[in-house]
Amino acid sequence: MTVSIVLGSASDEPVLKRITTVLDELEVPYKVTVASAHRTPDRVRTLAGDENVDVFIAVAGLSAALPGVVAAHTNKPVIGVPVSGKVNLDSILSIVQMPKGVPVAAVGLDRGDNAAILAAEMIALKDDSLAERLIKKREDMAQDVLKQSESVQG
Amino acid sequence: MTVSIVLGSASDEPVLKRITTVLDELEVPYKVTVASAHRTPDRVRTLAGDENVDVFIAVAGLSAALPGVVAAHTNKPVIGVPVSGKVNLDSILSIVQMPKGVPVAAVGLDRGDNAAILAAEMIALKDDSLAERLIKKREDMAQDVLKQSESVQG
Amino acid sequence: MTVSIVLGSASDEPVLKRITTVLDELEVPYKVTVASAHRTPDRVRTLAGDENVDVFIAVAGLSAALPGVVAAHTNKPVIGVPVSGKVNLDSILSIVQMPKGVPVAAVGLDRGDNAAILAAEMIALKDDSLAERLIKKREDMAQDVLKQSESVQG
Amino acid sequence: MTVSIVLGSASDEPVLKRITTVLDELEVPYKVTVASAHRTPDRVRTLAGDENVDVFIAVAGLSAALPGVVAAHTNKPVIGVPVSGKVNLDSILSIVQMPKGVPVAAVGLDRGDNAAILAAEMIALKDDSLAERLIKKREDMAQDVLKQSESVQG
Amino acid sequence: MTVSIVLGSASDEPVLKRITTVLDELEVPYKVTVASAHRTPDRVRTLAGDENVDVFIAVAGLSAALPGVVAAHTNKPVIGVPVSGKVNLDSILSIVQMPKGVPVAAVGLDRGDNAAILAAEMIALKDDSLAERLIKKREDMAQDVLKQSESVQG
Amino acid sequence: MTVSIVLGSASDEPVLKRITTVLDELEVPYKVTVASAHRTPDRVRTLAGDENVDVFIAVAGLSAALPGVVAAHTNKPVIGVPVSGKVNLDSILSIVQMPKGVPVAAVGLDRGDNAAILAAEMIALKDDSLAERLIKKREDMAQDVLKQSESVQG
Amino acid sequence: MTVSIVLGSASDEPVLKRITTVLDELEVPYKVTVASAHRTPDRVRTLAGDENVDVFIAVAGLSAALPGVVAAHTNKPVIGVPVSGKVNLDSILSIVQMPKGVPVAAVGLDRGDNAAILAAEMIALKDDSLAERLIKKREDMAQDVLKQSESVQG
Amino acid sequence: MTVSIVLGSASDEPVLKRITTVLDELEVPYKVTVASAHRTPDRVRTLAGDENVDVFIAVAGLSAALPGVVAAHTNKPVIGVPVSGKVNLDSILSIVQMPKGVPVAAVGLDRGDNAAILAAEMIALKDDSLAERLIKKREDMAQDVLKQSESVQG
Repeated sequence: MTVSIVLGSASDEPVLKRITTVLDELEVPYKVTVASAHRTPDRVRTLAGDENVDVFIAVAGLSAALPGVVAAHTNKPVIGVPVSGKVNLDSILSIVQMPKGVPVAAVGLDRGDNAAILAAEMIALKDDSLAERLIKKREDMAQDVLKQSESVQG
Repeated sequence: MTVSIVLGSASDEPVLKRITTVLDELEVPYKVTVASAHRTPDRVRTLAGDENVDVFIAVAGLSAALPGVVAAHTNKPVIGVPVSGKVNLDSILSIVQMPKGVPVAAVGLDRGDNAAILAAEMIALKDDSLAERLIKKREDMAQDVLKQSESVQG
Repeated sequence: MTVSIVLGSASDEPVLKRITTVLDELEVPYKVTVASAHRTPDRVRTLAGDENVDVFIAVAGLSAALPGVVAAHTNKPVIGVPVSGKVNLDSILSIVQMPKGVPVAAVGLDRGDNAAILAAEMIALKDDSLAERLIKKREDMAQDVLKQSESVQG
Repeated sequence: MTVSIVLGSASDEPVLKRITTVLDELEVPYKVTVASAHRTPDRVRTLAGDENVDVFIAVAGLSAALPGVVAAHTNKPVIGVPVSGKVNLDSILSIVQMPKGVPVAAVGLDRGDNAAILAAEMIALKDDSLAERLIKKREDMAQDVLKQSESVQG
Repeated sequence: MTVSIVLGSASDEPVLKRITTVLDELEVPYKVTVASAHRTPDRVRTLAGDENVDVFIAVAGLSAALPGVVAAHTNKPVIGVPVSGKVNLDSILSIVQMPKGVPVAAVGLDRGDNAAILAAEMIALKDDSLAERLIKKREDMAQDVLKQSESVQG
Repeated sequence: MTVSIVLGSASDEPVLKRITTVLDELEVPYKVTVASAHRTPDRVRTLAGDENVDVFIAVAGLSAALPGVVAAHTNKPVIGVPVSGKVNLDSILSIVQMPKGVPVAAVGLDRGDNAAILAAEMIALKDDSLAERLIKKREDMAQDVLKQSESVQG
Repeated sequence: MTVSIVLGSASDEPVLKRITTVLDELEVPYKVTVASAHRTPDRVRTLAGDENVDVFIAVAGLSAALPGVVAAHTNKPVIGVPVSGKVNLDSILSIVQMPKGVPVAAVGLDRGDNAAILAAEMIALKDDSLAERLIKKREDMAQDVLKQSESVQG
Repeated sequence: MTVSIVLGSASDEPVLKRITTVLDELEVPYKVTVASAHRTPDRVRTLAGDENVDVFIAVAGLSAALPGVVAAHTNKPVIGVPVSGKVNLDSILSIVQMPKGVPVAAVGLDRGDNAAILAAEMIALKDDSLAERLIKKREDMAQDVLKQSESVQG
């Protein structure tokens, strides 16, 4: 297994869907867990210590401590996805503004898709076939923009 | 010992000073530790489990996960003090916007003095003599405002 | 009676519901009043002077002066719950950024549930049986996260 | 006496200076008091009940409850001046976002000068000679802009 | 006529309704105009010069220049009402942060009701019978809070 | 004359300097005036009606109405430069968030240099020699980046 | 062809509609393309190099790099339209806060109509007949405000 | 060479220093270039196409397009470091809020140190000896916190 996805709450499933759609498409294996930095801190600690994981993706809203707490227990890269709510600056700033020494790689609000691509880019550093699938995906995205352009000009 | 003060970094000492000045004045015993939710998570967990503590005061800036992580390991009240920096909304929102189930009592930016009074108010629920010292302090503050007024009217 | 809940307006009832659900579950007695810092200041003052109360929970939106005005008339702990609206930073900052000397314990936007748990944690400092119910609730929350995790992995 | 100026703290004196400079220039009588909505609420209430006052100017920073609490105890117009600090949106929003029924007239951050002019405009509704001094001041300001323009074109 | 209400756009009618409801209740005469600081600046200038007006209420959203432009052409008090939209801080800050010398009295977002009461408070400085109606309204509001309290306690 | 620069206040001279340095370099003629949308509205109106001007650059801080008020009186392009202060979002949003029908071209905070280049780009639509000077300036900027790169690698 | 409209995504079509409605009304010819600064950067570069274009209008949301990237490849004026979303300050600030040397003319959130008028104002510097159509449109807008006023006074 | 550091401007050198200090300590090779997304877009494109690079770190302030534009031309992971200035939310949001398909890994404001550690964590996925140096660094950081704690308790 290479990617461990941790949700702060089952209500984050729409963001999860965006992650797994892209990971499936790129054929990157993953597992999914719900674990809370505040309600099940020991569970987060155990998850973060899993040696078989290459990259963590942690998804959380509000005061989104989860990505940072995962990062506190591992030296593997941790990607944080802020979840939208009534304030939005809360989850974005909680994930971006990590103190010195324990980095989290923040992506955009609800941006599970980009978290998945970023995880794949990291793993592709040692997996040439995944690197090729990323090149292919990038070309597909460019083609999609061209099609949108034709439809708008329609 | 009744109050456990946890600083996210030794650089938070000016806020610490505001806390201990008030606790000393109110004769509330305390101990001080530096511990980081991200760099020394196990230390935070051990601190939070201390059964001899009545109230925790956790001080942190940036993505201020410390108060929430302390709260994750105790059922004692946890007061969070956001520390000022370049953004300010980051530490305020990280401490205020805790998810359901694990509360933190947020006070204002750098407001160590209020954290100390709030801690004393909690302990005073079972300590009548502390309750009296709080009443005295409140009267002193009112007097101080009157003096300011006279000085301004000059 | 131990908790006095003060709403700034009857329109804050959804937040009230979150408070009373948790207080009922934890068997903490309470009473509820609507009182406005601006429209019925004397009523707030009378409420705040009630010696039979251990903890106040004040709920208000917009320029949420209510928790601070309650705190101005008591030395008991006052928990402030900001209510969501069109701006949100208004009620959050009004409750968090109290000046020196009169603390309010701010919880998150619409976070009545956490206000109730925080109040219970304070009262539990002198009520061992409530402390046990809090431990039980914490375990239930952890179990709930495990169930969410199984359902997502489903 | 026509204008009652209330400062939340003696540290607001630079803003006071801007108010009194303009009131002196416009020959509007005033008195000055320091009183805190949170530390001396009864004093604020007494001040607000003064029947000899035409207009109140209340100056406060952070969670600036003072103008609203003055307004809670009078039907005279209350002008609120937010004082700058580390956050600024806190005092601005606390003064602007008053709930329905109890208005405060907010001016800009540290804008004591405009509070004074606004107070004079209100009193001028029943004082023709003050109305003339306001017209004169407006002309002076226009002249001052012309002089600035010449100096820049130099 | 005593109050001149100027709307930046006909789409601001819901805020207008809140103003006129209160002015009608307080028996304060008014007239209503739509005029844009940007699209019909000369019309705004003419309106602002009306000598029969005691107080202006200007309602505008986005970059809400209207209240300030009215104020530029009169020495009568001008109350500005920011209208809500997608950003909200835009209209609030545009109305509050007036430069030195030309004040606008800002009320809260969409707070037409408070603009009306504030206008009445100004006019009541020279109209004792209006002052009495304001006292009556304040008592009614207090009664309304009591009724809300009874309904919540149900 | 082709560019008319209008400052809201003589205190905006540092921004003016950035504008004129670039206009001088690009050999674009200009004139400078101080005029306030609020204190000298008629003067702004007269300036805006000048038929010999191709492009206006209006510089203002706080509730920066000046660019919009210039735009209200001309169909020539108006560039607005927000000036920094204690809040910054005030001048940015006041200039960007213009209502439908009367555009202002907003550049960045204190960004007089970009206002000058933008004005030149507009005038270059009908002035080929200025277009060439713009190409030259762009190449110089690219060279400057290369030199910075060498210095950093040093 | 005189105006080149570039959308960051086909989902920006509602803003496009506002642009083309005004350009059609003013009889300004244009073409429309979808191109992404991030997914099809080479396409953006090619578009930006089109010598037949007078003015570019670039429409983008989130981290709206598109207007700046167009501007990086042309000396023609580039107008940027921020598209609304969950945060709004992201697209506004990304478009407004361009660094020194490469200006973008920012208009308001979703303000395609103003982008079109601004583009027309620029082209009118060398097209007198378009200048006349702009004068006519301005008069129509003023008339429309008068009609709104009558309808409100109704 | 494994890490390519790209600065938007030579003025970003203090952030560069934080990056290279950590990369030197972790013995990760790197090269440094100044290149601007807006002033030297072709240079950025060439840099981004370098096949010998494992990870990019792009540093930029204001409307910080640089990390996104690097990411547009590579499938290697790109880490973005927002640089502090007068607004701060501008560079943070510009880097975090990337659209779907082209991720950037955002770290905190001026947080060059964390960018370096994050880059090392990514490279360590295929470099066991670097992974060991990261473990060692993490232990050193924990020790440092302990020393801070002793000094504060001193």
